[in-house]
Amino acid sequence: MSKYWSAITRRINPYTPGEQPRDRRYIKLNTNENPYPPAPAVLEAIGMATDGSLRLYPDPDCEELRTIVARYFGLKKDQVFPGNGSDELLAFAFPAFFDPGSAEPILFPDITYSFFPVYATLFRITFERVPLREDFSIPLESFFRANGGILLANPNAPTGMCLPIDAIRSVLAGNRNRVVIVDEAYIDFGGDSVAALVPEFPNLLVIQTLSKSRSLAGLRVGFALGQAELIEGINRIKNSINSYTLDRLALAGAVAAMREESYFQDTRNKIMATRERTADTLVGLGFTVIPSQANFIFISHATEPAASLFSRLRERGILVRHFNQPRIDNYLRVTIGTDAEMDAFLTTLKTLI
Amino acid sequence: MSKYWSAITRRINPYTPGEQPRDRRYIKLNTNENPYPPAPAVLEAIGMATDGSLRLYPDPDCEELRTIVARYFGLKKDQVFPGNGSDELLAFAFPAFFDPGSAEPILFPDITYSFFPVYATLFRITFERVPLREDFSIPLESFFRANGGILLANPNAPTGMCLPIDAIRSVLAGNRNRVVIVDEAYIDFGGDSVAALVPEFPNLLVIQTLSKSRSLAGLRVGFALGQAELIEGINRIKNSINSYTLDRLALAGAVAAMREESYFQDTRNKIMATRERTADTLVGLGFTVIPSQANFIFISHATEPAASLFSRLRERGILVRHFNQPRIDNYLRVTIGTDAEMDAFLTTLKTLI
Repeated sequence: MSKYWSAITRRINPYTPGEQPRDRRYIKLNTNENPYPPAPAVLEAIGMATDGSLRLYPDPDCEELRTIVARYFGLKKDQVFPGNGSDELLAFAFPAFFDPGSAEPILFPDITYSFFPVYATLFRITFERVPLREDFSIPLESFFRANGGILLANPNAPTGMCLPIDAIRSVLAGNRNRVVIVDEAYIDFGGDSVAALVPEFPNLLVIQTLSKSRSLAGLRVGFALGQAELIEGINRIKNSINSYTLDRLALAGAVAAMREESYFQDTRNKIMATRERTADTLVGLGFTVIPSQANFIFISHATEPAASLFSRLRERGILVRHFNQPRIDNYLRVTIGTDAEMDAFLTTLKTLI
Repeated sequence: MSKYWSAITRRINPYTPGEQPRDRRYIKLNTNENPYPPAPAVLEAIGMATDGSLRLYPDPDCEELRTIVARYFGLKKDQVFPGNGSDELLAFAFPAFFDPGSAEPILFPDITYSFFPVYATLFRITFERVPLREDFSIPLESFFRANGGILLANPNAPTGMCLPIDAIRSVLAGNRNRVVIVDEAYIDFGGDSVAALVPEFPNLLVIQTLSKSRSLAGLRVGFALGQAELIEGINRIKNSINSYTLDRLALAGAVAAMREESYFQDTRNKIMATRERTADTLVGLGFTVIPSQANFIFISHATEPAASLFSRLRERGILVRHFNQPRIDNYLRVTIGTDAEMDAFLTTLKTLI
């Protein structure tokens, strides 16, 4: 605490990303990174961009990237907004669309991406957590009431459960005067994106990232999709914070990544196959495995407490994520790695239970 | 305007960066980029980092970069905070240290970096502009009164004028309960940094960038220097917005850039020599040239209106910057390019006056 901190700096409880320890080599199943490297063409494109032109500012409007993302989703260029990862996009969307001091709270599930309440606190947005059902499914009926906006992670984190398009369509249709943000960070691992609903719903903002399914967590690129008015709203916030949030190399790599469709398909299919195989084995070991359409699984053992498993896995060089919060403190979130990594995880786990 | 926009989205007047036109090749003297490429070792370091590890998140704490920047300035690692360009650092500093609704306004000059009032509006911080004197010097006496914080760009933009260390020390000493932010984006072109005052003043936050003197505008890296409590305050805001604002390639390039001292010295010395030679010629052509310690000059002609010169230079393939605002609308800000670029600029200019 410092006398120089503003009131909000004192009040916020910042997000804590998964640990990135350097003390030894770990099998890293804790931050939902992709176990496969980016497509070779991505590295080549970055190599080509690594030249004297780095002395020049990047394109603040990301024209080339917006064009290729728009084409990918069958949208228009002015319906795409690239950002420095999906977190930055969410951070811009809060002040863009939600009003501090509004009597109507924004709504999101009680168990979801734990950055949502952090943004809300920073930007002084009143929020209300909608409790998930006992089985972690989202009670959609709770989103049909007065609110200041809605946030859904789909698939949800850290559960991995995914809503079908029609469920989200009903939320959009029932909240036409409020912005509904759908965070699709994990959509490419089995879920159906609502990107196609953008032309139909002016209140829909979809957020995706290249960090997970495109193997580019280290490059910091995501994008928002929405009708031009919403995109312009985010752009006004961005241009009041930082004109250039994507550097030249990130732009070059992202453009290349969006072109590598077959590599993308191969990679995500491998991860989904590994996920199903891992889940089956875990069930055989006495674990409850929440049905996942993400690149992670959320698991709980019948007798072994999650906190203990977390520590003992860590001692043995395997990092997973444990959230010490109500309702989920007996679960572990385990990122899907390569087959070899998951075999090592399962082998170690067998010795612990 | 959209019904989905928040009140603040409607109210803000976002910053407009200098244009980056693509219709033809220009001599770009409009965005204060460095005319020389980054040091070869920087491109090599980025090349080395362009590998499969891009699938992994970057180090959110930027340990290596903080270590090398701290050593460079004789500070401690916890006195350094890297960010995605100096703009992002300023954007984080506003909510970190300034309070919305405070009765005491933050203070900055009326003619200065035009992003300052944009941040203040976005974060609802009351501000007051301190009028520069007729000669564009800063009336320091105006900063010794009740305020919510102080911002000084040093050298100032777009004038290029620089305050000596003792002047800033007096502002720091006279405002010990308020954070004083010194934006040193252009300090390496002849001014003296106040970085050495960090251990003495807990209220000092210095912001620098690699965009200008390190030729890395395209990589998006800057850093803030201050005592640990201030750095922690910014870090709390950053971790409430985006855990990873610097990608792996930017980190690798920045670390290398801070090591390339002789390249850095050569480059900035060349630019300063070109600046002085250009200024001398301009005076001979009837221009007023404000004494600059930046990589740009601020000039006004005795008879030719700046707006007209701006347009006619642009038609001839030379971009400079013209700010259409009170007191400075008869000035042009001209970035210092290579000797050849400045010769082309001067030759063209002679045909116009």
